Amino acid sequence: MFHSKRAVIKCFQKINLSRSLNKKVELSPCIRQILENTPEPDVPIEINGWVASSRVSKNVAFLDIKDGTTFENVQCVVRPPTLLPQSIKNGTGLKVKGVWTTSRGNQKFEVQVTNQNAGEIEILGDVEELFPMIKSGHTFQYLRTIPEYRLRDARLGALTRFRSQVETSLVNYFDSETFIKTSPPIITASDCEGAGELFRIESNSKLQTGDEFFGKEAFLTVSTQLHLETLCAALNRVWTLTPCFRAEESDTNRHLSEFWMLEAEIAFVEDVGQLTTFSENMIKAVVKNLVDDYKGMGKNLLSTTDDQNAHSMVERWKMLLAKKWDSITYTDAINILQTAYDSKSVRFITRPDWGDSLKSEHEKWLAREHFQNPVFVTDYPLEEKAFYMKINEPSKGELGPTVACFDLLVPDIGELIGGSIREHDVTKLEKEIERRKMDMMPLQWYLNLRKNGSVPHGGFGMGFERLLLYLSHTENIRDVIPFPRSVNSCIC
Amino acid sequence: MFHSKRAVIKCFQKINLSRSLNKKVELSPCIRQILENTPEPDVPIEINGWVASSRVSKNVAFLDIKDGTTFENVQCVVRPPTLLPQSIKNGTGLKVKGVWTTSRGNQKFEVQVTNQNAGEIEILGDVEELFPMIKSGHTFQYLRTIPEYRLRDARLGALTRFRSQVETSLVNYFDSETFIKTSPPIITASDCEGAGELFRIESNSKLQTGDEFFGKEAFLTVSTQLHLETLCAALNRVWTLTPCFRAEESDTNRHLSEFWMLEAEIAFVEDVGQLTTFSENMIKAVVKNLVDDYKGMGKNLLSTTDDQNAHSMVERWKMLLAKKWDSITYTDAINILQTAYDSKSVRFITRPDWGDSLKSEHEKWLAREHFQNPVFVTDYPLEEKAFYMKINEPSKGELGPTVACFDLLVPDIGELIGGSIREHDVTKLEKEIERRKMDMMPLQWYLNLRKNGSVPHGGFGMGFERLLLYLSHTENIRDVIPFPRSVNSCIC
Repeated sequence: MFHSKRAVIKCFQKINLSRSLNKKVELSPCIRQILENTPEPDVPIEINGWVASSRVSKNVAFLDIKDGTTFENVQCVVRPPTLLPQSIKNGTGLKVKGVWTTSRGNQKFEVQVTNQNAGEIEILGDVEELFPMIKSGHTFQYLRTIPEYRLRDARLGALTRFRSQVETSLVNYFDSETFIKTSPPIITASDCEGAGELFRIESNSKLQTGDEFFGKEAFLTVSTQLHLETLCAALNRVWTLTPCFRAEESDTNRHLSEFWMLEAEIAFVEDVGQLTTFSENMIKAVVKNLVDDYKGMGKNLLSTTDDQNAHSMVERWKMLLAKKWDSITYTDAINILQTAYDSKSVRFITRPDWGDSLKSEHEKWLAREHFQNPVFVTDYPLEEKAFYMKINEPSKGELGPTVACFDLLVPDIGELIGGSIREHDVTKLEKEIERRKMDMMPLQWYLNLRKNGSVPHGGFGMGFERLLLYLSHTENIRDVIPFPRSVNSCIC
Repeated sequence: MFHSKRAVIKCFQKINLSRSLNKKVELSPCIRQILENTPEPDVPIEINGWVASSRVSKNVAFLDIKDGTTFENVQCVVRPPTLLPQSIKNGTGLKVKGVWTTSRGNQKFEVQVTNQNAGEIEILGDVEELFPMIKSGHTFQYLRTIPEYRLRDARLGALTRFRSQVETSLVNYFDSETFIKTSPPIITASDCEGAGELFRIESNSKLQTGDEFFGKEAFLTVSTQLHLETLCAALNRVWTLTPCFRAEESDTNRHLSEFWMLEAEIAFVEDVGQLTTFSENMIKAVVKNLVDDYKGMGKNLLSTTDDQNAHSMVERWKMLLAKKWDSITYTDAINILQTAYDSKSVRFITRPDWGDSLKSEHEKWLAREHFQNPVFVTDYPLEEKAFYMKINEPSKGELGPTVACFDLLVPDIGELIGGSIREHDVTKLEKEIERRKMDMMPLQWYLNLRKNGSVPHGGFGMGFERLLLYLSHTENIRDVIPFPRSVNSCIC
């Protein structure tokens, strides 16, 4: 005998929530928690962490302890210095028992470790003489060769915390905008964009047999868009942050073979302006959190870099928040670029003609010099873009068909986001696929979406590491991901 | 000339945050937003969505509209029914203009579409005659064969929203516990666990050449643990939710070739009890959100299933929150099982001896029958577990060496989480690797962690789909992930 659904819901509302969770065997507080909830002065305290620096004199020793949860250290004043174990080096793992006291030094508080207050320092983990992180000032390039240690560097640690906080910030932004976070597949049978830079996968044990684990060729996804459109047709507003893979052989500071891509797809959207407004609000929400210094997100970054870089970073964040971002059509962009070229006010290597792709020099000049602001460039020529983009009605000044799409260009970086309205009319879509001489068969499932309850929709994609690179004013994309993968590089 | 860091931080605090973001080209509100912020009665309203059901009589037509953002529909009362377009079927995409009014029916509000109030219904997307989702009542098994449509099923849609809400819930739980969300690599050169069920990857364009894109063999990760330990050694408390891959040929309702794994790693932890307490609190936080009905999370699930299943689900949630979960050692578990077997109070196929692995029948009986509660089983025999687990001091009743580990067993499912304290002493770890005749070379980077500032630490892993399956009382794991992948199955 079961209750009716109404009765079930009623009984479920009565579940006793007052019973507190077990709190017996807790984690001991980390440094971030200690600093966020500063203890009363003169209480005994235990700090776990690693030695950031030490200074020993005749009567006293100073020990800076870090634990990776924040850029801030806790200073321990050890008196007499003989309480310090012999083998203390930078990087040594320690448990320090002492008393939390008001400090007369730079920091507001310090930990006093003395015989009188039962102070004690226990070594948890020694460091070998040759441990490379004992010295500071290694180049990021060198640090990439020792992935097992590199994140202990203060700056790279701050970047990794920053990454986490930006992700959390985005999760909450999308949640507040009633988006569903979804998990499109990583393994796919389709090379939907025809980009060609695919990784193929196969079960290791079948490699020699000629059998296929999935019964057909299978690849790692280069973009989840087509699958995301399926989710959008069922759930309306969907987004994802998933790994994507491209077997690009170019070895630059802007490319990774394994990267995380944020993609969003929204139903009942007909105007590119809705997509640009949404993505502008999304990035501004993240930057606002940076500036509001959400859990030290901004401070963490600023405090682990030099003054010049900190200054440039703050200027960038200010610029991003200062005003509404500009938006122009591709056709207007070409006119602006041609005028600039012809007037010799700027030296471009190439003068772009209508129909050409915008080169990196053009994109950067538009954002950095001309608008001095992020700028959306919309309505690119059809031939420059993918088959699924909605073709516009002809418009004045355009020398050929254009599509309802946008790229977000930001100063110094160039393209950060790309998106479009998708063609939702199955006849038009099939016609375009035929015109491009693409294989219709593997796309049948995608075309089915347009046959049944298809509605206007659109979306965009943003390389997550590209965003992190930009906001943190970092030079090489390999430094905003813990274990970068690129051609000939897959350490551990 | 740049400001000093202090000046930079000060100026950055002054960035004007009052400037409101552009709100000109907004998304139109979805049904969840409309229901959460119910408009005043008698205001004009526009609803976008799909037909869930329709009923036409002589003087009036009723139209239920859904849009995938919640399980709830909005009812439209169309008078006269001639305002309805001809080709309305379940699944048709619509834009409805009408007036939001207090309802005399089951729902509190409805949308009235009449000539008098400028009511209008526009078809955005027709459905083909043969569209399978027009009929309801398809089996989940059939729906899996049409991945492009299956998530439009009410129950599967609710499960996908549920997945999103559980993930958001976990992001915020870990954030509140000062964990850093990290992205360990998906592509790895190590087969660390030696599990053998690896997928190998290679650039598609290099398959015929014999060259290797990464300069060596590369695989998809089966578990991010070893890399997560690297992050833990730098950042203290880290977690991840990443895709993992296993080329398992078994084709069951509990296994996927591509699944998402939640893994956490915590520094300065010495006691398995700290890990079990943490993971108990983590799951209870999610269940508490379910019961608190966070954004319809619980109601969404209950309302899209039958009474019997809804009842079982609520009972399960109640059981999870009711009391502190039990914890026993493996040795005690064996004694309990042997006693039960010998007394013939329960019929097991096998009588377990100390040293044997617990069979599924034993795990389920322990949780469901003996404890009627989730139960942590700790301190398994060394030979049953992986090389990196910390070996315990010998203890009474144990017939061989054990390790400081735990499995969480839950009624009906069996194992949900597995974790351990990791051996952080390099000498002991090397000895164990040698004893197991494993290859030391590929693990050198992992051993390096133990040579420099190594501290006691531990962590756990949980299959994310396994958790979703359990909490949502779903039978087949393929129904809690949008595009399931398993042997011989990779549709689109």
